[in-house]
Amino acid sequence: MTEPTAELLIRRYLEGRLEETRDQVVGEEPLEIRLSGEPFQVLMRLPGMEKELALGFLFTEGIIQKLSEVITLHFCGTATDPLLPPNVVDVKLTEAALARRGRRHLEVAYSSCGLCAKEAISEILLKVPAVESALTVTPADILSLIARMQEAQAIYRATGGSHGAALATPGGGPFLLAEDVGRHNALDKVIGRALLQKLDLTAMVALLSGRISSEMALKAARAGIPILAAISAPTTMALDLGRELNLTLAGFIRDGRLNIYTHPERIRI
Amino acid sequence: MTEPTAELLIRRYLEGRLEETRDQVVGEEPLEIRLSGEPFQVLMRLPGMEKELALGFLFTEGIIQKLSEVITLHFCGTATDPLLPPNVVDVKLTEAALARRGRRHLEVAYSSCGLCAKEAISEILLKVPAVESALTVTPADILSLIARMQEAQAIYRATGGSHGAALATPGGGPFLLAEDVGRHNALDKVIGRALLQKLDLTAMVALLSGRISSEMALKAARAGIPILAAISAPTTMALDLGRELNLTLAGFIRDGRLNIYTHPERIRI
Repeated sequence: MTEPTAELLIRRYLEGRLEETRDQVVGEEPLEIRLSGEPFQVLMRLPGMEKELALGFLFTEGIIQKLSEVITLHFCGTATDPLLPPNVVDVKLTEAALARRGRRHLEVAYSSCGLCAKEAISEILLKVPAVESALTVTPADILSLIARMQEAQAIYRATGGSHGAALATPGGGPFLLAEDVGRHNALDKVIGRALLQKLDLTAMVALLSGRISSEMALKAARAGIPILAAISAPTTMALDLGRELNLTLAGFIRDGRLNIYTHPERIRI
Repeated sequence: MTEPTAELLIRRYLEGRLEETRDQVVGEEPLEIRLSGEPFQVLMRLPGMEKELALGFLFTEGIIQKLSEVITLHFCGTATDPLLPPNVVDVKLTEAALARRGRRHLEVAYSSCGLCAKEAISEILLKVPAVESALTVTPADILSLIARMQEAQAIYRATGGSHGAALATPGGGPFLLAEDVGRHNALDKVIGRALLQKLDLTAMVALLSGRISSEMALKAARAGIPILAAISAPTTMALDLGRELNLTLAGFIRDGRLNIYTHPERIRI
């Protein structure tokens, strides 16, 4: 996709019943920044303003100090430029700026040329097996676990500045909670605790206070967690990963309502 | 600090007047993960559950596949262990797990041993000059710019899944907006656009829909932006950076209210 949003058919639970509805989901795609043709950084981003993103990133990361250090700036989002694959910005810098780039290296996962969400997912599927779990939950279970997580987020209540993540069985025993300034860290902390306690992650639901990006969905799948339920929105790439990796994704859990985006068979009414 | 929150004296603007008040701010500190003594990854995190964070991170990033691949796991948060500096987790892995670590490299900025927020900031100050700008704004300017940003966030309104960032003069002309799945990207996009339009960043206010982490404060300072105002909360390390880099940080801008955390002299009542 090169559109900033996608319209999808989802299931919405509200007041005891499930309905099919159309929903707008925010777009997420990788963008590779190359310096004179050499891979430098991959950012997961909303499509749009790619040249600005590359330029701003190089500036605020201290690689360039002024616009005149950029010799050329090319982006091809639509494959109309035969020389540059889609989702790549190529920047030619002066020697002085290039010398500031440091020891940055691309992750192996994004080593392909001209990557897009679909290709990035294909690479992930070669390495990450689909989740195997027969776990099911009811919407009431999820609503109750989310409420319990919110009650337990003491640092959020004191500061308004942290995210929460929880891991629990549908019935709530055991129930693990972590808070952090980063969503990724909060999820990693509860998963780490579950590992230390030798809990069966394939029998647990993960709860998040924030949004579900592709990275959050991938973390859950790698841990073998079958259901990821969040208070806020998912991205298109998270949903693509959820679909492929047999991961149930639910979002917008608030006011007794929840949206089910992928693998609804695990949520029984 | 090793506490999860810090109590600070801040200024709060409400209904036309400014009052001093105590406020709880969420803690942010670097954590270095070492593999058998060798630097592997630095995460900015809320202090607490460090072993769990390191373990969960290694698991969900695909480095370890089960707990038995971890031979030892040490953390020293309070400098009571003479062999390990604070804010470092050292993990000894089996050969099979170690082989999965890939080509990851630490950023040059975090090359010190036993880093903490204070040391990380000292290193940053060697490279990033303090912001030089005589810009001032009124609380009414900020409230009006934030409202304008929220009105313009079309993708957020459609999906609930994106962050917004804006750059504007106090009077609102010019006014640049970007949306993205990442807060960092949204800020980089508007800064990149301002660079392309050759606007004077030292005369502009940056507005954010989300929180102010250390990375967001650093991006603003590197771009020379004097005032960063956000709808949500800052972290302790962002405030330390703001103080040192002559950056005015304001947060919790909602319902006609705003908190001023650093360099209040730029906000005139």
